[in-house]
Amino acid sequence: MQITPKVREILSWYESDNPGTKTNLARILMEGKLGGTGRMVILPVDQGFEHGPARSFAPNPAAYDPRYHFELAIEAGLNAYAAPLGMIEAGAASFAGAIPTILKVNSSNSLSTTKDQAVTGSVADALRLGCSAIGFTIYPGSEYQFEMMEELREMAEEAKAAGLAVVVWSYPRGPMLDKVGETALDICAYAAHMAALLGAHIIKVKPPTEAISLDAAKKTYEKSPVPEIGTLAGRIRHVVQSCFGGRRLVVFSGGESGTSEAMVEMARGIHAGGGNGSIIGRNTFQRPKEEALRLLSDIIEVYRR
Amino acid sequence: MQITPKVREILSWYESDNPGTKTNLARILMEGKLGGTGRMVILPVDQGFEHGPARSFAPNPAAYDPRYHFELAIEAGLNAYAAPLGMIEAGAASFAGAIPTILKVNSSNSLSTTKDQAVTGSVADALRLGCSAIGFTIYPGSEYQFEMMEELREMAEEAKAAGLAVVVWSYPRGPMLDKVGETALDICAYAAHMAALLGAHIIKVKPPTEAISLDAAKKTYEKSPVPEIGTLAGRIRHVVQSCFGGRRLVVFSGGESGTSEAMVEMARGIHAGGGNGSIIGRNTFQRPKEEALRLLSDIIEVYRR
Amino acid sequence: MQITPKVREILSWYESDNPGTKTNLARILMEGKLGGTGRMVILPVDQGFEHGPARSFAPNPAAYDPRYHFELAIEAGLNAYAAPLGMIEAGAASFAGAIPTILKVNSSNSLSTTKDQAVTGSVADALRLGCSAIGFTIYPGSEYQFEMMEELREMAEEAKAAGLAVVVWSYPRGPMLDKVGETALDICAYAAHMAALLGAHIIKVKPPTEAISLDAAKKTYEKSPVPEIGTLAGRIRHVVQSCFGGRRLVVFSGGESGTSEAMVEMARGIHAGGGNGSIIGRNTFQRPKEEALRLLSDIIEVYRR
Amino acid sequence: MQITPKVREILSWYESDNPGTKTNLARILMEGKLGGTGRMVILPVDQGFEHGPARSFAPNPAAYDPRYHFELAIEAGLNAYAAPLGMIEAGAASFAGAIPTILKVNSSNSLSTTKDQAVTGSVADALRLGCSAIGFTIYPGSEYQFEMMEELREMAEEAKAAGLAVVVWSYPRGPMLDKVGETALDICAYAAHMAALLGAHIIKVKPPTEAISLDAAKKTYEKSPVPEIGTLAGRIRHVVQSCFGGRRLVVFSGGESGTSEAMVEMARGIHAGGGNGSIIGRNTFQRPKEEALRLLSDIIEVYRR
Amino acid sequence: MQITPKVREILSWYESDNPGTKTNLARILMEGKLGGTGRMVILPVDQGFEHGPARSFAPNPAAYDPRYHFELAIEAGLNAYAAPLGMIEAGAASFAGAIPTILKVNSSNSLSTTKDQAVTGSVADALRLGCSAIGFTIYPGSEYQFEMMEELREMAEEAKAAGLAVVVWSYPRGPMLDKVGETALDICAYAAHMAALLGAHIIKVKPPTEAISLDAAKKTYEKSPVPEIGTLAGRIRHVVQSCFGGRRLVVFSGGESGTSEAMVEMARGIHAGGGNGSIIGRNTFQRPKEEALRLLSDIIEVYRR
Repeated sequence: MQITPKVREILSWYESDNPGTKTNLARILMEGKLGGTGRMVILPVDQGFEHGPARSFAPNPAAYDPRYHFELAIEAGLNAYAAPLGMIEAGAASFAGAIPTILKVNSSNSLSTTKDQAVTGSVADALRLGCSAIGFTIYPGSEYQFEMMEELREMAEEAKAAGLAVVVWSYPRGPMLDKVGETALDICAYAAHMAALLGAHIIKVKPPTEAISLDAAKKTYEKSPVPEIGTLAGRIRHVVQSCFGGRRLVVFSGGESGTSEAMVEMARGIHAGGGNGSIIGRNTFQRPKEEALRLLSDIIEVYRR
Repeated sequence: MQITPKVREILSWYESDNPGTKTNLARILMEGKLGGTGRMVILPVDQGFEHGPARSFAPNPAAYDPRYHFELAIEAGLNAYAAPLGMIEAGAASFAGAIPTILKVNSSNSLSTTKDQAVTGSVADALRLGCSAIGFTIYPGSEYQFEMMEELREMAEEAKAAGLAVVVWSYPRGPMLDKVGETALDICAYAAHMAALLGAHIIKVKPPTEAISLDAAKKTYEKSPVPEIGTLAGRIRHVVQSCFGGRRLVVFSGGESGTSEAMVEMARGIHAGGGNGSIIGRNTFQRPKEEALRLLSDIIEVYRR
Repeated sequence: MQITPKVREILSWYESDNPGTKTNLARILMEGKLGGTGRMVILPVDQGFEHGPARSFAPNPAAYDPRYHFELAIEAGLNAYAAPLGMIEAGAASFAGAIPTILKVNSSNSLSTTKDQAVTGSVADALRLGCSAIGFTIYPGSEYQFEMMEELREMAEEAKAAGLAVVVWSYPRGPMLDKVGETALDICAYAAHMAALLGAHIIKVKPPTEAISLDAAKKTYEKSPVPEIGTLAGRIRHVVQSCFGGRRLVVFSGGESGTSEAMVEMARGIHAGGGNGSIIGRNTFQRPKEEALRLLSDIIEVYRR
Repeated sequence: MQITPKVREILSWYESDNPGTKTNLARILMEGKLGGTGRMVILPVDQGFEHGPARSFAPNPAAYDPRYHFELAIEAGLNAYAAPLGMIEAGAASFAGAIPTILKVNSSNSLSTTKDQAVTGSVADALRLGCSAIGFTIYPGSEYQFEMMEELREMAEEAKAAGLAVVVWSYPRGPMLDKVGETALDICAYAAHMAALLGAHIIKVKPPTEAISLDAAKKTYEKSPVPEIGTLAGRIRHVVQSCFGGRRLVVFSGGESGTSEAMVEMARGIHAGGGNGSIIGRNTFQRPKEEALRLLSDIIEVYRR
Repeated sequence: MQITPKVREILSWYESDNPGTKTNLARILMEGKLGGTGRMVILPVDQGFEHGPARSFAPNPAAYDPRYHFELAIEAGLNAYAAPLGMIEAGAASFAGAIPTILKVNSSNSLSTTKDQAVTGSVADALRLGCSAIGFTIYPGSEYQFEMMEELREMAEEAKAAGLAVVVWSYPRGPMLDKVGETALDICAYAAHMAALLGAHIIKVKPPTEAISLDAAKKTYEKSPVPEIGTLAGRIRHVVQSCFGGRRLVVFSGGESGTSEAMVEMARGIHAGGGNGSIIGRNTFQRPKEEALRLLSDIIEVYRR
């Protein structure tokens, strides 16, 4: 398979990584309908862990079966499928080679009162299950943030030595952040930057709002205003810039349920702002499959432009 | 021994597991009077650790002797016997090969003020004692839940590599859960789902009540009501569905002491709802043996239908 | 499953072994049509390694497929199936739980000019493949015998710690032994005894002839003649006696191809002499399946008496 | 990517392997112009080690540059590229993701007087370089055969645990084999069978001649003659049958330099006999690139039928 | 310090190496009077081990003191200094940072009757002593060649992971090679190629003669004659080509004692043939320092052109 110049350029950003990790990044970037474009749409299904099975799958009961998500990702022509251990184990053999998988190696749940996660998978699991990457969530700002970062550090080191890629979900929360702050532009850019600093190959953040949350940062943003901050594209551009001047892959979560048009519109903003794509769970697998495929096709169309 | 089509189908769900783990699952599923049906009755005797010897065995002093429980499980034609290290050590040689055993590798006790457990057995113990599986309790919702999940992760990885099966007791408790919440339908389904995500082969939960506990989940359950939620069968069906659309083995504990008829009735509900069986401790070994055998025989009869 | 008194008695011989090893011995002893009798018929298929595929399977081409041998052993109601790594890997998942397997962990071949074998499997392999035992060949008398015994020692120690049983193929050969010597009664008894001394749980030797090979031993045998040395039963009795006075399991290979009647007659001798059974490869899988099943049924009939 | 039914069937043969290994087998089987057909053409470049640089590359000096071989394999649309450590290191980053690679982890050379090889790569190397498999040569019949098999055993166990595939080059040589014997049909089938027994996923042997070399085997082949032994197809069929009745992938080396037509004709025989493909080094990279691409295209055309 | 385009190009050849190894290669390539040119002169002092102290140092007794060699290398403006453990330990602190060092980690001596070496240093030693590389000798063709290659493999893997460079002394000798053969062009090119295949970053061989030693290679060299084989430059060019088409650093030893003019002339040939430099021990440290500095200056002058 000829790797496209775009993907070769992206791989060149990861110059300290071994060829194994580059190979797995290439696998993700060359897969599916966006293969070769440098853009990605990834299906993450960790909702079951985070919100429980009914809140995740009752809207579309076919999705209770782990095989459903493999099929959805493959049929839609996505770049990768990310899920916790049990979900991957339940389909990794049936769908071996059919789509790159990302083993989500830590997980939280709605019964927790702390802003932490449990490590629920390992690099050895990722290798035996044929995954291309591990996925790890950090909560910058949480009282557990340093423990989480240290766990990430250890697993990322091991993953990189074994030729795997590292995807970091960077979700700010904690005592200094109110609901607005968690998606404020400065905080989102900061969270993405920290993921990059921690050695992430692919960074997942939420699409930022116009808010600037950190008092200490306000002066800076006043002095150097983010161009087109009023548009999603402008804000995305700032987040992308915050990830090593655009030399790390950044994808954006779909967030809470929204209409299909809202999702596509969001993709337009991410695309225009230079983001590398969408990682959309709930908004796809909670729809009937045909509808989800249509939505994903529309989103992919945006990124193919 | 010819493995039945039903059991072969169940084994196919565990497609990422090695033949060793499949062999041990087959051993449990093919044992006893329910052998080959895909249903199971398991005898767990960790009450001594949890509640102390007198509360556990005084009602039937013969049960102080660990050999009693092996005999009970074998005579009743059960699928497996689960207990902590000392209990298994006290009979594993005498009853070698007579019944699959599950080494309960963590334990709590009534003198504890925290919702945690101590790791009290190892995979090496399970191998030297001829066990077919390890059993591990998690308390989703507890302030120790993440540590417990991380211990489970590590032991499950090791157990799977050594060809053992992993049974997870998933018992929700913690600051967000009152007594009602601990057995609420949404919580029970969530706890079972998390066990599946953590890579459990067999999941043990309590039979759920009609309650919906988590505020965040109420809207979902209103919008997508659980069919026949008023019947145990309906609720079991929801829990089973929450375990990968029925592609993981789920068994239900007998709960607090009840009449024999209540136990059999519960089995009827589990059976009708598609649950894979019962795991009953107190309600059997606290009765005189003859009575326990009669009860177990009646329960097995329900599952054989 | 109730373990029979006979099998419990046999297990009592292995008093230094952990319950895991006893469990696996019990699994083998309780399996199939001879389950519980203390007698065994085992199917070994290492002929492909030893003699090449055509010499092994051309007489019955269905036997080229590794699944054939699992099926043959299961349908015939045998106690166990023994084979090298690749053969076990090719069916261990499909036949998980259907029959105890013995991983043959060393192998020779007809292209070798030395009387040695390569270690071709490990205890970790045996565990991940769900085997009940490892099988190891030693060549007492060979110039490599000490290396082989040392390899066995190391693997047996590891196997026993992991709860596996150890089956030793003890085949004398080497500079001091001519063709007659290799199956001479004194040598066969000696080889069996050494296997017992090396800690074997199950010992496999060839049925001995009347010859006495070792000069140093002749005086002893003249002074204390083996009763009924002229009958196979008498000679088997001496081999059994040489294995700790009958307190180790000893099975006898079928040897080169023979008629069905010869095979059954041999089983009669083994049975009468107190041997624990037959381990027959070529003489079964080189026949058409129906014929093999009939032969095995006849042999089993002998041992059931 | 949709895995074809043919490839899914092939993956099902490897039922004891983890999804990682299946994924890597799928990657090889789905790559290039033969992707999905179950047939493969692989480019091996270990000639430099075996015969020295000039004998390998002087006929086509562009081939001195390791990048040449990556390009050749990719442009020709092959399934995989196999080479020793240094060759892979010299291109693994530039061609990351462009073609599955097989790290040849042992190597011999023309200055050796023994029939052995040095271990020159590791599983950790294969992971950091993004390889899909390790490749290992054994010399069945050599006085070092048992050591080589033991090295293979150890590395294969480690590779399988890490989700890699294992390719075995099985080249008989040694005191019992003259030049004719090394490629005799019985020996070739035996060598392939041993590789299968050692747990190889893909077996590489030389195309066999009509000769039967082992005296002990002659009777068998007379009694059960190989059908169409006079044709390459007939002989290939026997080798394929010897690999677990066709349930292991078998590819055939191109052998010494030959004309393009001879190479294509050989592919026709391999195809007709049910072999899984060709692994051709010298006969491709020693030709000018255009000629090599034309030859490979013709060979691929044969296998696509 | 600006890394020159030439050195950046050279570093790009080592695309699978981590930045640590690239950094150490850059340190060597940017050091001294040839810094940045892509050419190197290295001082190796392993003569004491190989030939004994008097044969090594009596001609210039100042050289008994290990500090002498550090000083010589620094004053001469060389690229690196290579020596066994004790020699490095005796000056590594005094000259910390003053010149890149190469820890020679295996050594032979004149009292040995075998063509093997002892491993006398480790990667950990190299790290604690601040070395930039390890140096390892292999004897391709020796009856110990495979053991030596396996030792190198293991140490190189460890060195690369720790960010060190690997320098391989590849000196053919053994039963197939007479005195002429050891420096024959085909053998020298082969030895260099094998070092490259084993993953060496810098390859050290002896300057080759016009001889072609291996019968099997003669036809090739007749058919594809080495251009200008009669000149050292022509022969060097063939060796360089044999190292991945010139994409590995190759340096040439000075060989037995010669006149200064002979040394400079040799450098001219190496330079003209595209070799990366000289590694000269005896011919420098056995001269009085002033003379040695003059010689090294002249050689450096050749490479600066």
